[in-house]
Amino acid sequence: MSKAQRAAVDAMLRRGPQGFMPRPVEQMRGDFTALMALFPVPDVRTSGTVLGERPAVLVEPEGEARPGTLLYFHGGSFSLGSPQTAMGLTAGLVARTGFRALSLDYRLAPEHPFPAAIEDCLAAYRSLLDDGVSPESVAFAGDSAGGGLTVTTTLAAKRAGLPMPGAIVAFSPGLDHTRSGASMDTKAGIDPFFTREGMAHTGDWYLGGQDPNQELLAPAVLADLTGFPPLLLQVGTNELLLDDSVRLAERARDAEVDVILDITAGVPHVFQSFIGQLDEADHALDRAALFLTQRLSA
Amino acid sequence: MSKAQRAAVDAMLRRGPQGFMPRPVEQMRGDFTALMALFPVPDVRTSGTVLGERPAVLVEPEGEARPGTLLYFHGGSFSLGSPQTAMGLTAGLVARTGFRALSLDYRLAPEHPFPAAIEDCLAAYRSLLDDGVSPESVAFAGDSAGGGLTVTTTLAAKRAGLPMPGAIVAFSPGLDHTRSGASMDTKAGIDPFFTREGMAHTGDWYLGGQDPNQELLAPAVLADLTGFPPLLLQVGTNELLLDDSVRLAERARDAEVDVILDITAGVPHVFQSFIGQLDEADHALDRAALFLTQRLSA
Repeated sequence: MSKAQRAAVDAMLRRGPQGFMPRPVEQMRGDFTALMALFPVPDVRTSGTVLGERPAVLVEPEGEARPGTLLYFHGGSFSLGSPQTAMGLTAGLVARTGFRALSLDYRLAPEHPFPAAIEDCLAAYRSLLDDGVSPESVAFAGDSAGGGLTVTTTLAAKRAGLPMPGAIVAFSPGLDHTRSGASMDTKAGIDPFFTREGMAHTGDWYLGGQDPNQELLAPAVLADLTGFPPLLLQVGTNELLLDDSVRLAERARDAEVDVILDITAGVPHVFQSFIGQLDEADHALDRAALFLTQRLSA
Repeated sequence: MSKAQRAAVDAMLRRGPQGFMPRPVEQMRGDFTALMALFPVPDVRTSGTVLGERPAVLVEPEGEARPGTLLYFHGGSFSLGSPQTAMGLTAGLVARTGFRALSLDYRLAPEHPFPAAIEDCLAAYRSLLDDGVSPESVAFAGDSAGGGLTVTTTLAAKRAGLPMPGAIVAFSPGLDHTRSGASMDTKAGIDPFFTREGMAHTGDWYLGGQDPNQELLAPAVLADLTGFPPLLLQVGTNELLLDDSVRLAERARDAEVDVILDITAGVPHVFQSFIGQLDEADHALDRAALFLTQRLSA
């Protein structure tokens, strides 16, 4: 396989702007936007819209769309990013599946700590349902913090008595603000992207002084996933967050939920962004697309 | 999803001939052949051949084959079955991928206990390599005991200094003759197919008095998977053998091997056999086919 590609990606990230070292939020946002702008975006059509009370980007395939909606939640440690910074991933899924996506510009910390982002994501889902979209035709998808939001928004929907979406796809999701996964230590230095200190910096913004020992802040440790839709978790082994996915998959299995834990060795956080440079990225998105197609067509 | 289909499959198996209750081997072989003949076989072309010193069945797609070989190991608790009893699964992969398959008629217990089957599988692989087939173009695939053989044959190949195959696909593999997985107890009665007693009956034939505490008899517990090719494990939650896959996936992850642990809730052992009756069966084979296509084309 692409051992050389995996090594090149790792080296590139280690030369990078260290966007995740603790710094003021505006500086981090600028650096993150610049970093994510380096990644290619497959051909799609985009237009602005509103979901709930938040801006969103409608992402449509170039050809005819097939029935089904991806509700996409971008990454950025709950403090950075926008639909645009995740457009490579969102467009990658849209181009591969033919489904439209709606990528939500949810509120960010530190200005808006937990649970603001979840409230926005839930309101977006509710507005789709209010528009007559059937829940089984909707998949939640997201990366990093947005991967976490796919799970916590589903938990919030369950609490609110809403029907479950048809599927969840999460790329390297952050699922534990208690940071208790073994990989937080075993992958220190191996993760070219994150440090425990850097994660605490943005994590504290999102927590806003609240106790992380609750289901919506540590679903990998505390969530009851009973009734969840089928779940695809993709993660690399070079990640502090590896065990967030591992533990959520265990919880899903114990709750009798269909779950695919899809681990790629030697690749970093949200390696799917490297489409065109890393075979594993394209392959992983192809697998995610098949999963979505199976689940939303069923 | 297909909740009704999953329930129907479970009910059907519970009405079945209880082929896995302890009985004389010839009776069990006959019942197993009759049971497996009930499953549909996708359209393929088959012909007899020899691999190593064992008979095998060459399975080719109806259209033009693409480069790549699936070396298939059938299930049957190491004591039952033949290439024909697994033909639905083998043909299902061939029809979906366009790869040819060679399904091996390896020696069975009790006449030929451990490690006879592994020796035959390894000899088959070696004969492919001797014929000039490139190792990266070969995937090992198998179900149940044959799923176990995909892993143990790879271990044996590593010990023998042979190059690794390009990929491994295992459906509900048996990977632990110490039977120490928690699911051996937690899934008792939930598994419509196996009991601990039934598994001990055929397991003792395969062990032939040998100690199960060794890598080739309990790879889920003892194997060093370093250097393994990418691995896809598919398993249902209604299985005594669930934790065999779970634990092997953990070992793969720890050994920096690409691994997909693909769990479907509420389905039995080797549920992929139910193509055409259970959406999950077709979906699972489609995912396996994409995985094989990605890995053998790389």
